[in-house]
Amino acid sequence: MEDKQLLMIPGPTPIPARVLQAIAKHPIGHRSKAYSKIQEEVTANLKWLHQTEQDVQALTVSGTGAMEAGVINFLSAGDRVLVGCNGKFGERWAEMAATFALRIECISAEWGKPLDPAAFEAKLEADKEKQIKAVIITHSETSTAVLNDLEGINKAVKAHGEALMIVDAVTSLGAMNIPIDEWGLDVVASGSQKGYMVPPGLGFVAVSAKAWKAYETATLPKYYLDLGLHRKATAKNSTAFTPPINLVFGLQESLRMMREEGLENIFARHDRLKRATRAGVKALGLGLLCEDEVASPAVTAVMPTNVEAEKIRSLMQEKFAISLAGGQDHLKGKIFRIGHLGFVCDRDILTVIAALEAVLQELGQTNFTPGAGVAAANQVFVG
Amino acid sequence: MEDKQLLMIPGPTPIPARVLQAIAKHPIGHRSKAYSKIQEEVTANLKWLHQTEQDVQALTVSGTGAMEAGVINFLSAGDRVLVGCNGKFGERWAEMAATFALRIECISAEWGKPLDPAAFEAKLEADKEKQIKAVIITHSETSTAVLNDLEGINKAVKAHGEALMIVDAVTSLGAMNIPIDEWGLDVVASGSQKGYMVPPGLGFVAVSAKAWKAYETATLPKYYLDLGLHRKATAKNSTAFTPPINLVFGLQESLRMMREEGLENIFARHDRLKRATRAGVKALGLGLLCEDEVASPAVTAVMPTNVEAEKIRSLMQEKFAISLAGGQDHLKGKIFRIGHLGFVCDRDILTVIAALEAVLQELGQTNFTPGAGVAAANQVFVG
Repeated sequence: MEDKQLLMIPGPTPIPARVLQAIAKHPIGHRSKAYSKIQEEVTANLKWLHQTEQDVQALTVSGTGAMEAGVINFLSAGDRVLVGCNGKFGERWAEMAATFALRIECISAEWGKPLDPAAFEAKLEADKEKQIKAVIITHSETSTAVLNDLEGINKAVKAHGEALMIVDAVTSLGAMNIPIDEWGLDVVASGSQKGYMVPPGLGFVAVSAKAWKAYETATLPKYYLDLGLHRKATAKNSTAFTPPINLVFGLQESLRMMREEGLENIFARHDRLKRATRAGVKALGLGLLCEDEVASPAVTAVMPTNVEAEKIRSLMQEKFAISLAGGQDHLKGKIFRIGHLGFVCDRDILTVIAALEAVLQELGQTNFTPGAGVAAANQVFVG
Repeated sequence: MEDKQLLMIPGPTPIPARVLQAIAKHPIGHRSKAYSKIQEEVTANLKWLHQTEQDVQALTVSGTGAMEAGVINFLSAGDRVLVGCNGKFGERWAEMAATFALRIECISAEWGKPLDPAAFEAKLEADKEKQIKAVIITHSETSTAVLNDLEGINKAVKAHGEALMIVDAVTSLGAMNIPIDEWGLDVVASGSQKGYMVPPGLGFVAVSAKAWKAYETATLPKYYLDLGLHRKATAKNSTAFTPPINLVFGLQESLRMMREEGLENIFARHDRLKRATRAGVKALGLGLLCEDEVASPAVTAVMPTNVEAEKIRSLMQEKFAISLAGGQDHLKGKIFRIGHLGFVCDRDILTVIAALEAVLQELGQTNFTPGAGVAAANQVFVG
């Protein structure tokens, strides 16, 4: 059946009808008063969502573009930076930073394990000459479903005093609590196709006063991604370059929906989805790539032992039109990932767990009691 | 009346219902087979539209991002480049090129006048040591409605042999004939919100074999805009980074519509819209910023003498819900611009000219015979 897809990947996420309808409106001129009014509302709501008093910059980019803007605006060639590498995205930021001639040092952990705050602390404490200009980490590592200890690592960065804390919050912002101003995070990048419940095409960068100070002396060349140009325009409820108007219509609507739900409810919902997914998966006798304590509220990485991950994934698609994500790089074929962020409710998790049971039975698995997956998930929802 | 806007600005342009409906579909995963099939079709149709055998790269950017990609992928700091400056966009590319430490030399013309191919020829001929690495021009200068002589300037570039011809075709591609392979244009950048009849958020870059060769030795840092990464992915019907999936749904549909209409019909339509607009405007006693011979098929810049441009523009909005564009920079308040590219038909021009007549009468203008504007435009449509 066409159009009967249930999208359970870690982005793009399902989109509410209110948002899709907003996106389908005729565009208006982006230099009009009507657009300016939308921009004003969107900026105010982005500040609310980011828990910051600073304007949040919205760019026409994917998440990678937002992260690049978050790095190149505040650093200069030769600057020493620490990059957390424990998955595909951490490694991408190391690769990107190297492209811009930053002197990178990877603080690594095995894929599926979290970054160790103590390792950052040791490097930062040893840096008496304050040569480390930034620490770059991926908060929710989408490739492994690990949630890194942003608060812990940030404490070490604050103790250092000089380095900027640059965060890829692409799959964590809008899914869990990130009090940007309270924690003093310097640069936080995210993308519309995740917690925002908007299709891809918009990237966001929140910037602290300290980072804006670093911007003044940073010399990496930039124009399209020059956040100073964007900042000046945003302050006037305008945009430096043509914005993706229809996606902004969608963003306006989705931010209203998020305000209606409330930050605490949004975070509680994602936490509940995570716990129910993990409970259901475990009850069906499947392994998980990472421990409960470090599991992301946005995505769960399932590592089956007796049956091929890709077989499960393709049967889920074929029989039930449920899209799951595969593993990336060396985890390809070893795991599959269930996305549960953005416009996802408790019912969707029951659906996925119920279908997963059927698929495992079809693949000859008998190491669980029929109905055990849904029963376990329901314990979270009802309990 | 809400939603009764007639968008007659040079981008965003009106969007066909077929395209809006496609955009409003639920997104699918961009690593799925279904997405790959769309990407394959879109790439084939982009090649058709660009009249090139090379893959065209589609990026999540506005037109400025596409132009930046078109510049930084093929040049290195210190490279000498000639930039055509006769409007806001030409000047923007000079500013951008300077940001990336290119040694720029502006070949200027007054705003409203075209660039002189002989001036480029003289510089290129004098460059015996072949130090000029690129010539950057804006084909249709949206700020002044002047169409620069791309073919003539390109001939001088071809005679030079070394320099790349880099073209901002943002408001000309899909509105007029640009035979990229036949002319040997090296880099041609454009954006979705113009001739493509798609909302903003997608940028396109066509790249010649010669430019790809220059890419290999170009050293400006790049990652998100690294066209080599995009090229590799496009060749596999994939994308380097998350694409703006819903806008790609729209692009798929709009390219189908363009194929149905046919390139020659599209170009003839835009030429007709231009001629009718200019005839109607003249018959209403209004001046035009540039001469007929150098007028863009995408936009017309009207320069009223007896009445304030902004008064006309705001009355057009107020009385008839027709959005026109104002002048930019020093032309602010001196001109207004009528966009006629993309999803615009003959009827829209009659509407604008008829409304313009009413507005001029309301503003006390008597220097034309009532009905003269529409009569003149109809001469183009009927004749």
